[in-house]
Amino acid sequence: MIFFNSDYLEGAHPAIMQRLMETNMDQSVGYGCDPYCDTAREKIRAACQAPDADVHFLVGGTQTNTTVIASVLRPYQGVLSAVSGHINCHETGAIESTGHKVITLPSDNGKITAQQVEEYVKWQKYDESSEHIVQPGMVYISHPTEGGTLYTKEELTAMYEICRKYELPLFVDGARLGYGLTADSSEMTLPELARLCDIFYIGGTKVGALFGEAVVIMNPALKKDFRCFMKQRGGMLAKGRLLGVQFDTLFTDDLYFKIARHANEMAYQIRDIFVSAGYQMLFESDTNQQYPIMPDAELEIIGKEFGYEYWERTDPTHSGVRFCASWATTQENVDALRAAVHALKK
Amino acid sequence: MIFFNSDYLEGAHPAIMQRLMETNMDQSVGYGCDPYCDTAREKIRAACQAPDADVHFLVGGTQTNTTVIASVLRPYQGVLSAVSGHINCHETGAIESTGHKVITLPSDNGKITAQQVEEYVKWQKYDESSEHIVQPGMVYISHPTEGGTLYTKEELTAMYEICRKYELPLFVDGARLGYGLTADSSEMTLPELARLCDIFYIGGTKVGALFGEAVVIMNPALKKDFRCFMKQRGGMLAKGRLLGVQFDTLFTDDLYFKIARHANEMAYQIRDIFVSAGYQMLFESDTNQQYPIMPDAELEIIGKEFGYEYWERTDPTHSGVRFCASWATTQENVDALRAAVHALKK
Amino acid sequence: MIFFNSDYLEGAHPAIMQRLMETNMDQSVGYGCDPYCDTAREKIRAACQAPDADVHFLVGGTQTNTTVIASVLRPYQGVLSAVSGHINCHETGAIESTGHKVITLPSDNGKITAQQVEEYVKWQKYDESSEHIVQPGMVYISHPTEGGTLYTKEELTAMYEICRKYELPLFVDGARLGYGLTADSSEMTLPELARLCDIFYIGGTKVGALFGEAVVIMNPALKKDFRCFMKQRGGMLAKGRLLGVQFDTLFTDDLYFKIARHANEMAYQIRDIFVSAGYQMLFESDTNQQYPIMPDAELEIIGKEFGYEYWERTDPTHSGVRFCASWATTQENVDALRAAVHALKK
Amino acid sequence: MIFFNSDYLEGAHPAIMQRLMETNMDQSVGYGCDPYCDTAREKIRAACQAPDADVHFLVGGTQTNTTVIASVLRPYQGVLSAVSGHINCHETGAIESTGHKVITLPSDNGKITAQQVEEYVKWQKYDESSEHIVQPGMVYISHPTEGGTLYTKEELTAMYEICRKYELPLFVDGARLGYGLTADSSEMTLPELARLCDIFYIGGTKVGALFGEAVVIMNPALKKDFRCFMKQRGGMLAKGRLLGVQFDTLFTDDLYFKIARHANEMAYQIRDIFVSAGYQMLFESDTNQQYPIMPDAELEIIGKEFGYEYWERTDPTHSGVRFCASWATTQENVDALRAAVHALKK
Repeated sequence: MIFFNSDYLEGAHPAIMQRLMETNMDQSVGYGCDPYCDTAREKIRAACQAPDADVHFLVGGTQTNTTVIASVLRPYQGVLSAVSGHINCHETGAIESTGHKVITLPSDNGKITAQQVEEYVKWQKYDESSEHIVQPGMVYISHPTEGGTLYTKEELTAMYEICRKYELPLFVDGARLGYGLTADSSEMTLPELARLCDIFYIGGTKVGALFGEAVVIMNPALKKDFRCFMKQRGGMLAKGRLLGVQFDTLFTDDLYFKIARHANEMAYQIRDIFVSAGYQMLFESDTNQQYPIMPDAELEIIGKEFGYEYWERTDPTHSGVRFCASWATTQENVDALRAAVHALKK
Repeated sequence: MIFFNSDYLEGAHPAIMQRLMETNMDQSVGYGCDPYCDTAREKIRAACQAPDADVHFLVGGTQTNTTVIASVLRPYQGVLSAVSGHINCHETGAIESTGHKVITLPSDNGKITAQQVEEYVKWQKYDESSEHIVQPGMVYISHPTEGGTLYTKEELTAMYEICRKYELPLFVDGARLGYGLTADSSEMTLPELARLCDIFYIGGTKVGALFGEAVVIMNPALKKDFRCFMKQRGGMLAKGRLLGVQFDTLFTDDLYFKIARHANEMAYQIRDIFVSAGYQMLFESDTNQQYPIMPDAELEIIGKEFGYEYWERTDPTHSGVRFCASWATTQENVDALRAAVHALKK
Repeated sequence: MIFFNSDYLEGAHPAIMQRLMETNMDQSVGYGCDPYCDTAREKIRAACQAPDADVHFLVGGTQTNTTVIASVLRPYQGVLSAVSGHINCHETGAIESTGHKVITLPSDNGKITAQQVEEYVKWQKYDESSEHIVQPGMVYISHPTEGGTLYTKEELTAMYEICRKYELPLFVDGARLGYGLTADSSEMTLPELARLCDIFYIGGTKVGALFGEAVVIMNPALKKDFRCFMKQRGGMLAKGRLLGVQFDTLFTDDLYFKIARHANEMAYQIRDIFVSAGYQMLFESDTNQQYPIMPDAELEIIGKEFGYEYWERTDPTHSGVRFCASWATTQENVDALRAAVHALKK
Repeated sequence: MIFFNSDYLEGAHPAIMQRLMETNMDQSVGYGCDPYCDTAREKIRAACQAPDADVHFLVGGTQTNTTVIASVLRPYQGVLSAVSGHINCHETGAIESTGHKVITLPSDNGKITAQQVEEYVKWQKYDESSEHIVQPGMVYISHPTEGGTLYTKEELTAMYEICRKYELPLFVDGARLGYGLTADSSEMTLPELARLCDIFYIGGTKVGALFGEAVVIMNPALKKDFRCFMKQRGGMLAKGRLLGVQFDTLFTDDLYFKIARHANEMAYQIRDIFVSAGYQMLFESDTNQQYPIMPDAELEIIGKEFGYEYWERTDPTHSGVRFCASWATTQENVDALRAAVHALKK
């Protein structure tokens, strides 16, 4: 059985494991105040060309989204998000558990537009019963989105301008940021992305680490007491050095980007396998997640040898499913998938 | 200037004011444990033909919705509601402030169906990532709805059956319950409605009281420690007797229903004024709120003499607006409105 | 049976009831935007000599404390309070329900000192694990306290200086403020008190109104979007005019202070009854609540004719109990109490 | 520099690191549904002699305490704890952030008694204003306590009986459980402890793992939907296998207990070093944390070569400090400490 279900099927990239072994017996203070975290923070600041940014390490995505959003909003405010946004769909109401509404905007491809944000803000602000409606207090997007799609530089620039116009901090969920930045169609580098938002995170869990997300706070107004939020939300790892070691490794010799690029290249082959075999794709993804629409009968056959993630029913006999590539995806496994898909078509 | 903006423009029905005056100097214990509350509870139980129901008095609607929903749900659960439901649109995220997601179902006329609920529950329950999705823990409907529409007996029966099948308590927001029960097209009496849900409230604020909502808990499993929830949420009035006196008066000699019927009759005249003058209505309301769609130019004219509530834009030159009747609406004022609308058409 | 249990045993002062009757049929917009609220706000600003203060009307005390505290704190902060503070003891964890810890300081007489606050802040700030300890974000005191005691001008001045030094907003719970300001030993006027804190409220429920608390925001930094907090917490009354009418009446011709002074004078008589009969008092109260310590056997006798509130056991055979006076307390009833207490001693 | 500050200064026990390396390239599903977690759960159930217990893996202590407590309580309930309890002092108000009050009971040595719990429950239950006081909904203790002290079997039995009598689930925080169970004075085995509470956790972070806490739910009533709580609170690790591998290793060949026993033996030597040198100890700890009271002048000297954790000032010139042992503490380092302490006394 070969699994393409997700990008967190294996442990960590071997370079990370090696560094964890090498440093295992070192003694260090806890809670992210150790030297590994310090150098990792420095390397991330350098990679972002943001010497003044605050960098914090958390363990997982839900925790990170919840902590960031709770740190930005006032109690009566909500967060604007695509209706398909991760925080709206797949976090068991974690945002709401902190008291905030996820205000949803319709979306076909996982993205929302500056215009949608502006229209919503204007409507809320000028409605007669404005005080009775949840006030939007920030904007949440993910890059890439849940469907693997990417914001263009123009789109993100427009979004950030609108956000500044209405004083709405813009938060970019970068759980899979590496895949976005190294995609063929990517229009942005890490420093450029960092400049087009107020706060974002660089995902580790889904890009080669055992676990870990690096929050980068660009906007000074959002820095105050962030560690208190982390601790209160259970997001401050006792042996914080584990996060430091991992991100230090990922940001040494561009490992983070190499890992991500490898996954994208494997994913492009997967896309070609399906597209050339005549399948429609659910989303126009240029990143490591690919979503072919397949007949249920064929899924049953392919499912005997290959793991994929069920996404959604598209009609009574077809479904959209997800195949993911990661740092660990081998050419050999992709070739096996190619052969199996071709076999379906005979 | 004559106002039709809402059904809470005046103070209270004179019979209530009189009773408040008469009892003003009596001494009583606080927090709803006084004799006025006791007799009011008895009269409400009798009106519901529900001798075992628990009855509690709260001050306002947002408070009541928040307290009831927080008392029913577990922290990881949400409440199913029409996307147009009051709790989703007009309570500044009060439900989310208690940690719960409002899970929205699409609706054209303010109502949701048993089938929608069942489909959602099945989808959530059998989704591969079920634990990552907010679990529906109850169903919220209002009767009448925000648009003044009514559930038929068949619809409500089907809804309650589905709710019991999936162990989802059904909560009916009855902020305007009186108007619903006394509508021409009403298919249900108060005892019948009480039997078709687990918990509901009888609105006072919008039906003749100074303020006050009477929560009726039909399902014994929902009764435990409800007063603790009330106190914690700031919903336990120190001089609880004020609520007891008001509801005692409303449920003496059917005053609650007489008030509501009067308002409906005034509203039917208002509906006739607009329909006979050729206006479309935004909702098919058979209750005290009527929503004509009018050209903006005419609204400007009518707005010089009459207060109405702006509801929504329907096209670039037309808007849906709300005219409400209440216990205090006079024939004289309705006649004035009739004359003004006729004048527009000349 | 004559009740001295609390200061909210009756309805409202007759002047308030009369105004509510007179205005009952007027039409007005909702949610505190009506002309009655406007004039009441003006009168309160004038009484406070604070033309720039924001004034908001809420229904009850728990609601007010919760809303104010939630509006001031960041999520990881707590509120410093005497261990005997109302918010710590008698609100069913309402503060905690909004996510905040009540950080308690020891107190014998219901008061806390500037020095206690400073010591706590310094300890938390300089502790090695500062981020792991709840950060104090504001100070809560009540004036008078739960035991009826009063802050001196010197004490409150010192407290406010410390609060400003450490940027901790000072909130004064004035549920019984009138009794404090009109006590024989009061060292402060309303304008003076207003200048010695950041936000406070003028209690109506316990000082002659049917219900209602007037929040006065002195510190401009705390004004933003307060109405959103009110609405979200269920504290925005639909017929807000009821609060406007009541506070307008209370702040016309000094009625608020006259009511409070009357109650204090009755309370001083009650104090004299007990003190002259040789009873110890639980607190040195100079306001409308008096707390004699009585043998349980005598309490049983007195309890047959007079209502009081049980406070606490002081030894196996004695208890501290509360007798309250209010605007409605009559000389006749106090005389009856005097006779009964004298009878005990024969 | 040699550090004795805490028991989480190093990475993980080498056996754990080796297993993480060996399994690194295996593919597995996420979120704790993998085979490693399954076998770890089986081994923990076996070690507890509790075949029906539910076992869940979380990442850290604050997260675990918060998730467990939020899963047990109703919104208006609080958790009884020693005033020195970790949840009350060192988690930045994490419990309160979920809406619950930590109800504190006084304690000298970190422990609370069955009698204290019973007295509190009776007082709250029979107080006249019972509904206005936070209802205790569960009891939290830690074993060992913050000061390293241990409950005797008799004490814990009495506590659990009282808890069952009043239907209060008993939760044992076992962040350092291994040290408690392998102490010289321990009166309980793991199966015995499991039978004397409703829910507890076996700490990994502080007992040899990189991170991880294993929650064991003994009481069937507390099992429902626990994974939803975990996900919502950000406590469900994507690569859950990391927790499975670690606990599987810890519960193979009694590694967990061997690690803990080693630490205790090192700690007993540390205790002897200080006691034999004439120092008083702050707590009577029989576990891996030792708390000598030392003159500040000597602390300055010892601090140049040895790391310790500052605990509290005991008088103007003395402080209580903490020296911890762990699986990684070497005889060599303890000998160095011995020499240094002896040197102080010359």
